[in-house]
Amino acid sequence: MKIAIMGHGVVGSGVVELLKLNSDFIKQKAGESIEVKKILDLKDFSELDYADKFTKDFNDILNDDEIKIVAETMGGLNVAYKFVKECLEHKKSVVTSNKELVAAKGAELIAIAQKNNINFLFEASVGGGIPIIKPLHLCLGANEIVEIAGILNGTTNFILTKMIDDNMSFDDALKLAQNLGYAEKDSTADIEGFDACRKICILSSLAFGKHIYPENVHCEGIKGISLEDVENAKKIGGVIKLIGRAKPTSDYKLEIMVSPSIIMNNSQLASVKDVFNAVLVRGNATGDVMFYGKGAGKLPTASAVVSDIIDVVRAKDNIDTLSWKDSNENNIVPYTDVVSDFYINILNPELKDISDFFANSSIISANENRQALVLKNTTLKSINEAEEKLNNIGIKILNKLNILDY
Amino acid sequence: MKIAIMGHGVVGSGVVELLKLNSDFIKQKAGESIEVKKILDLKDFSELDYADKFTKDFNDILNDDEIKIVAETMGGLNVAYKFVKECLEHKKSVVTSNKELVAAKGAELIAIAQKNNINFLFEASVGGGIPIIKPLHLCLGANEIVEIAGILNGTTNFILTKMIDDNMSFDDALKLAQNLGYAEKDSTADIEGFDACRKICILSSLAFGKHIYPENVHCEGIKGISLEDVENAKKIGGVIKLIGRAKPTSDYKLEIMVSPSIIMNNSQLASVKDVFNAVLVRGNATGDVMFYGKGAGKLPTASAVVSDIIDVVRAKDNIDTLSWKDSNENNIVPYTDVVSDFYINILNPELKDISDFFANSSIISANENRQALVLKNTTLKSINEAEEKLNNIGIKILNKLNILDY
Repeated sequence: MKIAIMGHGVVGSGVVELLKLNSDFIKQKAGESIEVKKILDLKDFSELDYADKFTKDFNDILNDDEIKIVAETMGGLNVAYKFVKECLEHKKSVVTSNKELVAAKGAELIAIAQKNNINFLFEASVGGGIPIIKPLHLCLGANEIVEIAGILNGTTNFILTKMIDDNMSFDDALKLAQNLGYAEKDSTADIEGFDACRKICILSSLAFGKHIYPENVHCEGIKGISLEDVENAKKIGGVIKLIGRAKPTSDYKLEIMVSPSIIMNNSQLASVKDVFNAVLVRGNATGDVMFYGKGAGKLPTASAVVSDIIDVVRAKDNIDTLSWKDSNENNIVPYTDVVSDFYINILNPELKDISDFFANSSIISANENRQALVLKNTTLKSINEAEEKLNNIGIKILNKLNILDY
Repeated sequence: MKIAIMGHGVVGSGVVELLKLNSDFIKQKAGESIEVKKILDLKDFSELDYADKFTKDFNDILNDDEIKIVAETMGGLNVAYKFVKECLEHKKSVVTSNKELVAAKGAELIAIAQKNNINFLFEASVGGGIPIIKPLHLCLGANEIVEIAGILNGTTNFILTKMIDDNMSFDDALKLAQNLGYAEKDSTADIEGFDACRKICILSSLAFGKHIYPENVHCEGIKGISLEDVENAKKIGGVIKLIGRAKPTSDYKLEIMVSPSIIMNNSQLASVKDVFNAVLVRGNATGDVMFYGKGAGKLPTASAVVSDIIDVVRAKDNIDTLSWKDSNENNIVPYTDVVSDFYINILNPELKDISDFFANSSIISANENRQALVLKNTTLKSINEAEEKLNNIGIKILNKLNILDY
């Protein structure tokens, strides 16, 4: 089986490396050997011992009838979208690690693949080396999925772990992540939650059958988390994690959001540390199932790409494309209406009595000019209304975090 | 699609219930509706609203050409083996939850299925509702599997959790497990580790390609664990778990065993509590991946059986049977030769100096007439040799446990 790789960055070069490293196992699983015939990349790789495979012209791949499978590991949206679409239209199966592409264009690309009787797979787009897309689709296929919640971004989980375990400030932890290569120089997509948001959108589209577009999903990053919040979370027996979650409601709407949230220590998600990712899936038959592993990195991500390639080879002409439908309707519950327990931290310089502002509240710490509260069963809308009134009497809410029960 | 179910116990009745409960989802995933045409069971179910489907005669299923898929949920070996084999020989695909059957006869049944171009699947045989068999086979297919370690039995994990968290004695915890329905009256298969042993054999056969027979595998249960051991484990920052593990060696042999072992608290396996199961898979590309969930129970196990049924329906004539070869050769490393760190607890009535008996040892507790030690990088063979000499001077080793590093 001859394949092409588009993009020879971290993941693409990892795919080449892995196909060589594990060639015996892969041949055994796939039933035939897999050969990289062409690699598309504009950079110069003339020093490599497989330099002869490189091309700078996409048409060299598109028009090569021997190439039946293309792995897209370029990342980014515009060029990747154009190339993947053309490959699918030319009846080449595509596997991709590109979450931005799948989150933005998944429904359209799936439809093209189905029309052309070929496969479009993207195991590597969520959770790096963790098997999650296929298990969610196949193994949990007998379940109504009741809820999904995940730690979907390794960079932010590393930073939060340093804040929690080592009392490191956000800025120092970010710098350390950058020095260790866990965060890029421009870490916006990680820190602001965009990366996690793309991933929860892909999982939700797959689980619930309709494309969920990231721009419709409330997405909140971890910049606003202080060591004070971390300390307060510990006081109630929890840790702060950046959680992407999705939950269908009884009236066929969807609660979906990405936000830093407090997870209690007895949850499996609480013990997921450093750059590790985990996805908890709650099925109506199977209960809570969790998938855990490295969510990024060269070989883990390449491992997911190659497993998709093997799948395509094995499937032969049996089309088993993962599938959801496009949808213009936005059936997402406004995030300010979602009912949850909340933690709030209040700057209250004169320590006024605020008990009238919040029903079902309990104080978890009060010192100097601060009060930290837990509010049971409320919404952000209610909290925001109270905040307006508090502001009028000179009291400021510093942070508001969901407390989740997994 | 018409199917039959053999065995209407906990799992079999769960399959009927789940096919009804989630019929819409299941139809959507499978591409057609799935109808239970016949159920084989010798007991009387005339009060059920689907009583008309029951038969006491296996031939009613075997000779019904409309039935293409048979779910075997009887358990046990002899009758199940005979029936499953005949179904496969009559070109009916079989899915099963029967770990005893797969561990004892897997290679033979797989070969029959392949010869007859049909499917033989057994997701439910390991980890109940946790997707593990297919992810190990498919999603991690690009990896050389370097090691597998799992908490594979919910009953023993529940008992150990009660001993660790509530200081409950083994006997009391077992009674509680029985009262809660987590343990059967005859709990031998759980307590002695036989159940976990079948499961690690199935996972190893799949991961390493050769049938591993349970009778060749060292299997040690949890009866010998005392609250003193639990306490000593805590002192070195660990917990005692019943671990099934398998690891290929560099000279093409396999270390495989089931034994109560000390797992350090920073391991993901340490936080797996109560009746939950978890399997850690270490791949040479993907690193550590863990699968977590309920390892038993009516609907979780039925969920895995039904996901296999859906797979068979979707596969149509594409055969995707999981596969390994039979093997008479026993390439298992004697468990007394496996190198590991160990914990030992010594009854030393006169508190004699025993430092000469063990190299690389450190004392973790010594009080009254006891000494608990950690021995680095040794084997049971070495410890047993020292034990003989110790016995001669009136010193007894009360327990020896592996300390594992996951």
